[in-house]
Amino acid sequence: MSDTRQRIITATAELFRRQGYHGTSVKQVTEAAGAPFGSLYHFFPGGKEDLGDAVLRTSGQAYLELFEVIYDAAADPATAMTDFFDGAAAVLEETDYIDACPIGTVALEVASTNDRLRAATADVFDSWVAAVALRLESAGVERAAAAELAVTLIAAVEGGFMLSRAARSPEPMRIAGRSMRALVELALTNSVLGAPGRA
Amino acid sequence: MSDTRQRIITATAELFRRQGYHGTSVKQVTEAAGAPFGSLYHFFPGGKEDLGDAVLRTSGQAYLELFEVIYDAAADPATAMTDFFDGAAAVLEETDYIDACPIGTVALEVASTNDRLRAATADVFDSWVAAVALRLESAGVERAAAAELAVTLIAAVEGGFMLSRAARSPEPMRIAGRSMRALVELALTNSVLGAPGRA
Repeated sequence: MSDTRQRIITATAELFRRQGYHGTSVKQVTEAAGAPFGSLYHFFPGGKEDLGDAVLRTSGQAYLELFEVIYDAAADPATAMTDFFDGAAAVLEETDYIDACPIGTVALEVASTNDRLRAATADVFDSWVAAVALRLESAGVERAAAAELAVTLIAAVEGGFMLSRAARSPEPMRIAGRSMRALVELALTNSVLGAPGRA
Repeated sequence: MSDTRQRIITATAELFRRQGYHGTSVKQVTEAAGAPFGSLYHFFPGGKEDLGDAVLRTSGQAYLELFEVIYDAAADPATAMTDFFDGAAAVLEETDYIDACPIGTVALEVASTNDRLRAATADVFDSWVAAVALRLESAGVERAAAAELAVTLIAAVEGGFMLSRAARSPEPMRIAGRSMRALVELALTNSVLGAPGRA
């Protein structure tokens, strides 16, 4: 990938985090990326929508990899929850509550206004849910329960970002993490109790 | 409150739900409200920001009252969870995934761009958390646990809206509701086990 294209994507991801899709102009993007205005249309012929699609998918993949690193370094699935939510809370505090989910704000803005970008956010959320579900299942949670719990965990992350940013406090995100830890522990207990030959 | 002012607020709330704060112009608002353009500045001298503040607080109060009606009609606190989340999922389906939380999209858009509106969303979230916490405590959940659980429930509602709108499916919201039901049941069990004289 060209350096300029990458700089444009990185700058846009940061602007989306801070001010969303509708609040970000292509002029702001090229200025923040230190790129000529015309270069945006060179790399993204469809303009802001093409750029938005690339940014959502690239940022979504990067955030997935961050989750995987944190999860796989944790002692157990329950600890992984508080590690991830506490880590997100710390980043919020360090970045003046700007560095939150890279796609959450845009997901709500485009849900009813741009179907291509809505589909991009849905694909990213699906990839996150699948990664979490796979890990919970590997840890012993029954498949259907793991799939459901994964959805709730991603919802809690997104809601935690919203409440923490609104309150300018890390507490909502930390609290959501403790609740998710409790849910993971409950799911592991239920799976052991429900497993054939163990009841 | 004058009819015109009320019509402007109602129309703006719907536009915010559908397309957010930055995606909504004052011209769209007055057209949707069937009001003269100048009337907006008569009722909201500070323009879009004054209007936004009024809409967030008014919508937040209305949504709080909706939650209270549903909760107070439910057989028990655990059932109240699935009633509320399933109801929100049904409204999403019926309204083509537009009629979600009245303040969620704006909360993320303004968190780092408009401190007055950020504070308005924080006040609304606080009022919701307080109402939920009060009810959980009345149901027997220990006070500190009720306050934490209330934060998680609001976060899960917001995240559920985001995932359901992105996927154009009621399932994420319903799943979040089932998880919150499990958390409420767990909190009630823990409170009974931990209560003095009952251990």
